[in-house]
Amino acid sequence: MMRRVRVGIVAPGSRLEPSTAQRVTALAAERHPEVELTFHPQCHLSSGHFAGADAARIAAFLEIANDASFDAVWFGRGGYGSCRVAEAALPKLKDAARKKTYLGYSDAGVLLAGLYANGFEGVAHGPMPADITRDGGDAAVARALAYLSQRAADALEPSIAPSRKAVAFNMIILSQLIGTPLQPDLTDHVLVLEEVSEYMYRIDRTLFHITSNPAMRRVAGIRLGRCSAIPANEPDFGQTEVEIVEHWCSMSGIPYLGRADIGHDAANKIVPFGAPRFA
Amino acid sequence: MMRRVRVGIVAPGSRLEPSTAQRVTALAAERHPEVELTFHPQCHLSSGHFAGADAARIAAFLEIANDASFDAVWFGRGGYGSCRVAEAALPKLKDAARKKTYLGYSDAGVLLAGLYANGFEGVAHGPMPADITRDGGDAAVARALAYLSQRAADALEPSIAPSRKAVAFNMIILSQLIGTPLQPDLTDHVLVLEEVSEYMYRIDRTLFHITSNPAMRRVAGIRLGRCSAIPANEPDFGQTEVEIVEHWCSMSGIPYLGRADIGHDAANKIVPFGAPRFA
Repeated sequence: MMRRVRVGIVAPGSRLEPSTAQRVTALAAERHPEVELTFHPQCHLSSGHFAGADAARIAAFLEIANDASFDAVWFGRGGYGSCRVAEAALPKLKDAARKKTYLGYSDAGVLLAGLYANGFEGVAHGPMPADITRDGGDAAVARALAYLSQRAADALEPSIAPSRKAVAFNMIILSQLIGTPLQPDLTDHVLVLEEVSEYMYRIDRTLFHITSNPAMRRVAGIRLGRCSAIPANEPDFGQTEVEIVEHWCSMSGIPYLGRADIGHDAANKIVPFGAPRFA
Repeated sequence: MMRRVRVGIVAPGSRLEPSTAQRVTALAAERHPEVELTFHPQCHLSSGHFAGADAARIAAFLEIANDASFDAVWFGRGGYGSCRVAEAALPKLKDAARKKTYLGYSDAGVLLAGLYANGFEGVAHGPMPADITRDGGDAAVARALAYLSQRAADALEPSIAPSRKAVAFNMIILSQLIGTPLQPDLTDHVLVLEEVSEYMYRIDRTLFHITSNPAMRRVAGIRLGRCSAIPANEPDFGQTEVEIVEHWCSMSGIPYLGRADIGHDAANKIVPFGAPRFA
């Protein structure tokens, strides 16, 4: 008999449309019937920018994370708001929370960072339910389900290897964690970075910030995911995102390791934090 | 005989138009003949986003800062680029550089922070030559000249008092210095913050970052300057900038001290770093 995998979905940042949840549930039933998805009603709350007030988002996250009957916490969507949840929620996580997988990216990286900084071993950067609305988004969601249920090796970013620790973040999200208690120790990790909808000069500034932090200079190297939907720089920035990363790697002494197959798109592969556990 | 004050202008970030320099020179001749302005030719160089290549901006900054015949370094304009100058330039500053006044804001805050972190006592946040192009910009430039030449008390932000240390920064600029060697020790300082052209959710995220840094939690309090040209948030953020600052002050235990008269505008008053020296 197939082992059922119970996945609870919460939205620590922006709100998830009920229709999106329905599409993801239908796709899971068809492609991964071994996965049982539970969208917490909090996902569909609305409070200004957020999927419900801070207290509601904190409570929903803790409810799923601390419930031993769930195998994984899947973040429903990015947007913005996880930083309003992290400091209050993380100290309230119990032993049941340590045994789970946590999957998400973008704004949810705030919680991934905080969980990893607190020694959680099941943290991973990868697609979320909201990705189903992207072009080709079914593949992104199916990839996440394959990882959540089977740790499918072909769901992983190709450079991921059992011998080497890695993490992945949106650049500005990582930048805004530096110097806070949410910053994980990334010594000897490959740091995989991606960005979306930021001006080239801001990508440059954010990489200055990341590579100027003494603890960040202890990473094993940086890999660059996709930088997409970059608004036109005025004047033209004159450097590509690769040249920018190469510049800051050179300035900081961090090895530049090449490109990575992650980004704010349907092709976004999974990067488990730490040394990956394969199926 | 009136003492002449020699002010050298460099542009560590974006390029300054020659016509802007001419307008500022004319205004100084009329309103502050005691001030002798020297626009370094580097101000008008162009290299992609920047006023010349990194090496040219570093060299110009060092040339003026290390020249004992100048009383002050005035940053010509913000934009972006000071973070590409700071790490290389700061260790090369000599004794002559320590005796000077440094005035600027926005992107130039990167250098103000690094100078202050290195014990420089003449650092101040206030108008730059490029402000002459703003509506009412003559007043901003005249205020800067009055400060540079006479430490004019009426040029100062009204809450500035000799008994209390202060600093001022653009929020995102300060955020992107946290955890780097450029972050100054702001224990017991009033931290005055302003922002321009950032979405409300980003103002919220940046204040999360600033107030979550343990060293920042030792400030005496936060004062909020103007947050201008805020793009429409989708959905509406539901909180004003004052409510956002109050939220993060409350979360972090930092006292919120009220509004301040600084911002990306012609009314921008001067905030000397540390305890101010009056005329």
